[in-house]
Amino acid sequence: MTACDDLMALERETQALAQVAGRLGWDQETMMPRGAADQRAEESGAMQAVLHARRTDARRGDLLAAAEGEATDDIARAQLRRIRRDFDRATRVPADLAVAVARLTSRAQGQWAEARAADDYAAFAPVLAEVVRLKREEAAALARGGDLYEALLDEYEPGMTVARLDAMFAEMRPRLVSLRARALAAEWPMLDAHFDEQAQLRLARELARRFGYDFARGRLDMAVHPFSSGSGDDVRITTRVSESDPFNCIYSTIHEVGHACYEQAIDPAYRFTPLGQGVSMGVHESQSRIYENQLGRGRAFCGWLYRRMREIFDDVGVTDEDSFYRAVNRVHRGYIRTESDEVQYNLHIMLRYDLERALIAGDLVTDDLEAAWNDRFVADFGYPVDRASNGVLQDVHWSVGLFGYFPTYSLGNVYAGCLHAAMRRAVPELDERLAQGDPGVATAWLRAGVQRHGGRHEPDEVIGNACGQALAAEPLLSYLEEKFGALAE
Amino acid sequence: MTACDDLMALERETQALAQVAGRLGWDQETMMPRGAADQRAEESGAMQAVLHARRTDARRGDLLAAAEGEATDDIARAQLRRIRRDFDRATRVPADLAVAVARLTSRAQGQWAEARAADDYAAFAPVLAEVVRLKREEAAALARGGDLYEALLDEYEPGMTVARLDAMFAEMRPRLVSLRARALAAEWPMLDAHFDEQAQLRLARELARRFGYDFARGRLDMAVHPFSSGSGDDVRITTRVSESDPFNCIYSTIHEVGHACYEQAIDPAYRFTPLGQGVSMGVHESQSRIYENQLGRGRAFCGWLYRRMREIFDDVGVTDEDSFYRAVNRVHRGYIRTESDEVQYNLHIMLRYDLERALIAGDLVTDDLEAAWNDRFVADFGYPVDRASNGVLQDVHWSVGLFGYFPTYSLGNVYAGCLHAAMRRAVPELDERLAQGDPGVATAWLRAGVQRHGGRHEPDEVIGNACGQALAAEPLLSYLEEKFGALAE
Repeated sequence: MTACDDLMALERETQALAQVAGRLGWDQETMMPRGAADQRAEESGAMQAVLHARRTDARRGDLLAAAEGEATDDIARAQLRRIRRDFDRATRVPADLAVAVARLTSRAQGQWAEARAADDYAAFAPVLAEVVRLKREEAAALARGGDLYEALLDEYEPGMTVARLDAMFAEMRPRLVSLRARALAAEWPMLDAHFDEQAQLRLARELARRFGYDFARGRLDMAVHPFSSGSGDDVRITTRVSESDPFNCIYSTIHEVGHACYEQAIDPAYRFTPLGQGVSMGVHESQSRIYENQLGRGRAFCGWLYRRMREIFDDVGVTDEDSFYRAVNRVHRGYIRTESDEVQYNLHIMLRYDLERALIAGDLVTDDLEAAWNDRFVADFGYPVDRASNGVLQDVHWSVGLFGYFPTYSLGNVYAGCLHAAMRRAVPELDERLAQGDPGVATAWLRAGVQRHGGRHEPDEVIGNACGQALAAEPLLSYLEEKFGALAE
Repeated sequence: MTACDDLMALERETQALAQVAGRLGWDQETMMPRGAADQRAEESGAMQAVLHARRTDARRGDLLAAAEGEATDDIARAQLRRIRRDFDRATRVPADLAVAVARLTSRAQGQWAEARAADDYAAFAPVLAEVVRLKREEAAALARGGDLYEALLDEYEPGMTVARLDAMFAEMRPRLVSLRARALAAEWPMLDAHFDEQAQLRLARELARRFGYDFARGRLDMAVHPFSSGSGDDVRITTRVSESDPFNCIYSTIHEVGHACYEQAIDPAYRFTPLGQGVSMGVHESQSRIYENQLGRGRAFCGWLYRRMREIFDDVGVTDEDSFYRAVNRVHRGYIRTESDEVQYNLHIMLRYDLERALIAGDLVTDDLEAAWNDRFVADFGYPVDRASNGVLQDVHWSVGLFGYFPTYSLGNVYAGCLHAAMRRAVPELDERLAQGDPGVATAWLRAGVQRHGGRHEPDEVIGNACGQALAAEPLLSYLEEKFGALAE
């Protein structure tokens, strides 16, 4: 046995335990009895303690250093690169700080939920200030003199920089603000009918299969906030159902199927290794977004979906494919990021990105956060926030310490824009097939170009290799302007 | 912090991890996608490795030794007694032997399933011989010169001895053989109707609630082989449904509710400690059996159940309470332990007990096991085994190395007999309440006398304290002779 073999055996077991912890999280959101919450907190805490101890184990560091002197092939070097990043990040944060962050954010999440229910930002501001303080400490430990925010961002999108995000958002913001104004001026139909829950769930399962989700290695359940969880042969998705709005179930399903197909498609040779999961949050989101938006909300697929829904539900509230397509892509005044359309979504992200950067930089204090949010919102969206739960309190992320996570949503959209443009060039028959309800040519292209590689390449490389060109916001912007420009005419 | 505090903190985390491992087992039997089996084997293996490392950790031994010098109160001494037993058992078995047993039994279980499907004992005998060989090695390591079988039995029923089991079974066997013959000569009606699956599941939930199961801290799902899993605030049960035989669902539910109520009722002060679970397999089985048989299959409750089922299903195939009661308690020729009635069940156990003792003693080789089984079966049951899947291949236990487990089923019945006799004396209104479909007085008595104590007392003490007299088979035998004597008239 070489040091590399020993290290990979150790990683293998850690990866298996991480899968167990993930399954526990799935259980918590789908199956757990409501009275089990306190007990579960202790069980999850014990699993996290085991995983943290393994991540920071000195033996891991020793084997890693020895293996780095041995590694001979590209795959092994990619494995070691990912282990090195994880080990360094885990060991740079002092153990007592890691424990303090975990404890505080657990408490802060509860206070956030209460404050949101009461529409009372002031009740949340003090604990958020504590979270920011500890996250800045954590960032300082990670950054070692570099940019604090970038050190946090690197957890979710390895290699991404603030400079690149700044440039990307600067390019996107004026064009999206302008497009938003045009789109909001147009008329958008809404579906007005009743859609039976069980029939929606059957449709959701059909859509999942059409988009390539393998039910033999997964399952679909209900959850308040839909998510995808797990890797390899056990990748589970969730959805939710509103009987007045079938798009909630349909597009949350297709979105999670995008995440899940990525995990299901990763080369089985990478199973239980650091390459056996999606490479970054942004690349993950690119898959869910391109399934949901560029494919699922495109005109061709919407034509098929309209006909299928007429078969299932008879009355769907609109009477032709074009109206249905407009209803799917409706742009409207709204406050909530997760309910946003393709045009406004990235404006939501930029707002959060600028505010959380300022918080981490120390340029904004939490007492001033609500006013800053509300000012920025009116500037970008054109109307004022009506209450805190529709504004600064709407997202869970900050309460649980997820600073640096938001931009990965926009990166996902930008990556999806690049991939979509390349896919259109590579697959000329795409619309013809989508019009038959068959996204198979698109998902096969994504599987071969992106998904099967798992963590083999850095995020930049994955998208660059698949698209044959460097990352740019232009394809997404052109796509949005073309699609919504036509719809807003 | 004293050594005892440190030790209990360590145990607390281990107990939490054991709960996670248990939940993973539940998931495997109820929710896991069929394509995830190989991946799950590796995930479960990683959890077991973590738990085994913690059980045998030298630090645990050091803290335990130090704490044993400190402990001042009864509770602390009970905790340390259970940790000591677990630590000694875990450390006496060499690590490579523990790994070899785990690997072999995983393989043997698969071979057993194939052999059972093919009715071919000869295909299973060689791997079973290997299992027996390793379990004898393990027993020798545990026994340190004592009885090999007793060393294995002690894992499931601490403190129980072969001498006591021998005496108990010697008393039971002739009386049960005689009762079996009388009962088989009588006429027993069967239900002949269709029972809708969803209606059965609703009834199962109602029965679970009536017997005291708390759904806020548990849930009911379907599984091929019903089981109960978890402790404290997350205790889940499973059932199965046959649309031609509602008793399958009804009595497997009540049985698992017995197990689950025990775990749900344990003093919350013992949560995540070694006292926080049922004290032994036998005491656990006593709860499931008394719920299922003495309460659930008694005349009083059957009267209520008949009326309730007439409300739900209209036609149930019999037309009066007495016939229904006879159908519930039908004694018939059968080969399968798990489908057996109260009269014949313990004969199944004695057969297995004698054979597995002979295997572990080295007095019987696996090549001769099938013939030995078949000879004994005809002697005790009065008719020959027709095929291996109805005989020596019917149970999974031996393939997975569970030698010494079978007698705990009979101990459960014997304990239940003692508890039932004492309960009758203490709760004179029992039948009146059961006739109203309300077992609450019985379950409250069991909760106070047995369940809330968890692992606080040794198995013998638990039953002795609850009943006010020493353990004996006589109450069970008298109960069975009275009940089935009357039914067989």
